[in-house]
Amino acid sequence: MKRVDKPGLRIGRFLLVILFFGGFFMGIDARAQSEPAAGIAIAVHGGAGTILRDQMTQETEQAYRDKMTEALRSGYEVLRQGGSSLDAVTAAIVILEDSPLFNAGHGAVLTSEGTVELDASIMDGSDRSAGAVAGLQHIRNPIRLARLVMEQSPHVIMAGNGAEQFAQELGMDLVPNEYFLTPRRREQLEQIQRQQQDSPTGSLLPPDEQKFGTVGAVALDRNGNLAAGTSTGGTANKRFGRIGDSPIIGAGTYADNETCAVSSTGHGEFFIRGVVAYDIAAMMRYGGLSLDEAANAVIQGRLTAMGGTGGVIAMDRQGNIAMPFNTPGMYRGYIDRDGDLSIQIFRDGE
Amino acid sequence: MKRVDKPGLRIGRFLLVILFFGGFFMGIDARAQSEPAAGIAIAVHGGAGTILRDQMTQETEQAYRDKMTEALRSGYEVLRQGGSSLDAVTAAIVILEDSPLFNAGHGAVLTSEGTVELDASIMDGSDRSAGAVAGLQHIRNPIRLARLVMEQSPHVIMAGNGAEQFAQELGMDLVPNEYFLTPRRREQLEQIQRQQQDSPTGSLLPPDEQKFGTVGAVALDRNGNLAAGTSTGGTANKRFGRIGDSPIIGAGTYADNETCAVSSTGHGEFFIRGVVAYDIAAMMRYGGLSLDEAANAVIQGRLTAMGGTGGVIAMDRQGNIAMPFNTPGMYRGYIDRDGDLSIQIFRDGE
Repeated sequence: MKRVDKPGLRIGRFLLVILFFGGFFMGIDARAQSEPAAGIAIAVHGGAGTILRDQMTQETEQAYRDKMTEALRSGYEVLRQGGSSLDAVTAAIVILEDSPLFNAGHGAVLTSEGTVELDASIMDGSDRSAGAVAGLQHIRNPIRLARLVMEQSPHVIMAGNGAEQFAQELGMDLVPNEYFLTPRRREQLEQIQRQQQDSPTGSLLPPDEQKFGTVGAVALDRNGNLAAGTSTGGTANKRFGRIGDSPIIGAGTYADNETCAVSSTGHGEFFIRGVVAYDIAAMMRYGGLSLDEAANAVIQGRLTAMGGTGGVIAMDRQGNIAMPFNTPGMYRGYIDRDGDLSIQIFRDGE
Repeated sequence: MKRVDKPGLRIGRFLLVILFFGGFFMGIDARAQSEPAAGIAIAVHGGAGTILRDQMTQETEQAYRDKMTEALRSGYEVLRQGGSSLDAVTAAIVILEDSPLFNAGHGAVLTSEGTVELDASIMDGSDRSAGAVAGLQHIRNPIRLARLVMEQSPHVIMAGNGAEQFAQELGMDLVPNEYFLTPRRREQLEQIQRQQQDSPTGSLLPPDEQKFGTVGAVALDRNGNLAAGTSTGGTANKRFGRIGDSPIIGAGTYADNETCAVSSTGHGEFFIRGVVAYDIAAMMRYGGLSLDEAANAVIQGRLTAMGGTGGVIAMDRQGNIAMPFNTPGMYRGYIDRDGDLSIQIFRDGE
């Protein structure tokens, strides 16, 4: 395993060393800058996809805006009272899981068998501890179980019946799978299955907010701790125990006080292959980019180049917020460090 | 979301821009250097942990050496005949899965219920396509099914019964769970469960090659394509549908022709939280480090600082090989670009 040694390579290696130590000292500089303000902030998303104004009634749009506002205010109130970013993220996601509007918890999309299977994950930026659950059928709020996996077990990921058995041992109630079912999702499944019968090769339909969808939150608390969480029902008509990016640390969720907190939504397979959530943190850490530069470089650059669609919400320790996506729309909103609330759905920022 | 604008920060940002463009041009330089040679190479691992010479008979040591040699020669022969790195990785891992010596396939560790549950993943560095399977009970060679998920499905991860149903639909035979069971692993489970009865709080025992263990391979083919794969039975006495890092792209397995191919082994929870396999690639891509520098910085630096134990095998497009670990030993070996074979088990390189 000898290295080829040419003069040109030597100069190249010398420059690399300069660059490495430059990066090292810049790292110190960046850390000095990254002392937390006393600011608090929270952002949420409710999925990205083909979300177009002319296909949405005013009532529907208002319902999405109201529910995202409720989730943001609930999480922000936790932060305002001095609570942790983990508590804020959990509070916001629980509201989105309980709403039939979003593809998570009650109202999640149906598998090919007409059942609901839920995934979620959460990560604590203060020590990079994490918890994730996959393939749940009887847990009302998967984000709460992901958090119990993080805090009450030595594991990071638990799946299926085993995860639900763990929940029961900790005293969590199970709910019947029917709790999650909504008429809207039954109709959607029937429609997809009719389309597949007409065109059996079309089993990999283009991404669509009707089919994909996720909820997520990122937050910064008074102690300067970041957290991120994500929850989903996966893709409509899914088979074969498919697991998407939402329970995958590094793909669907990532948080580290030294860089950023990220929650992803979109065509999960591309987010896994691109390690999208961690890629943003890595560009900040090793490349010296700002949150905004890194989030855009990953979503508009690397993800788009792979053919992947979706977006992220991301926050750094100064409470800067980035919400890039490459789909026609993404349900998203924030209450920033100045206390200003904003809800946006379409590409034009409205 | 305005940025605070102070003179000191402006200078900091100016330096970051310099650093960024420095990194950018160095990146071009690195890519120019990364044109593939006609070289081929392969490396394998069989797990990291408390592997000590004075606790191993000469016969046992020879058995491990022989089996790793067989796996390397099998994969290398694929490469020598012009086959792909994916085929070489698969061929090498199948031999380790079929051997009762390693914690993968036949001879994998047992769950708390005395059954075997297997995970695996594979990634193609040429296009970053990937496949993974988790919680298999009836698939003789999980690495083969991971590859079918990559090549024959639109998904990346499939779990449990769903994954086995997919296998059946593609004509793969199922084997009874008893195929995987060996007397050695039954005794090990009984011993762990007896120890837990004596000390019930000791459910999170320190990592140990008796309990953890994984097999994996990385390879470079004549077309300059990298591939990586990993396969495991997880941890002995595991419960709750625990999933480790082996089926997690970015944690247990990663491959990208632009940086490196990596297969991990160790205490999986830390590898997931640290996104270890992708972190090595990110340090190379954004930080300009060499394969050896990046692999060591991640394992001896970041993983060790988190309290995680284990190691990786990693290869770049020039066929450089790095095999850092922070445990007493790691079963490992390679046939390098000069055709030289080496097998090592202990820390001293023997």
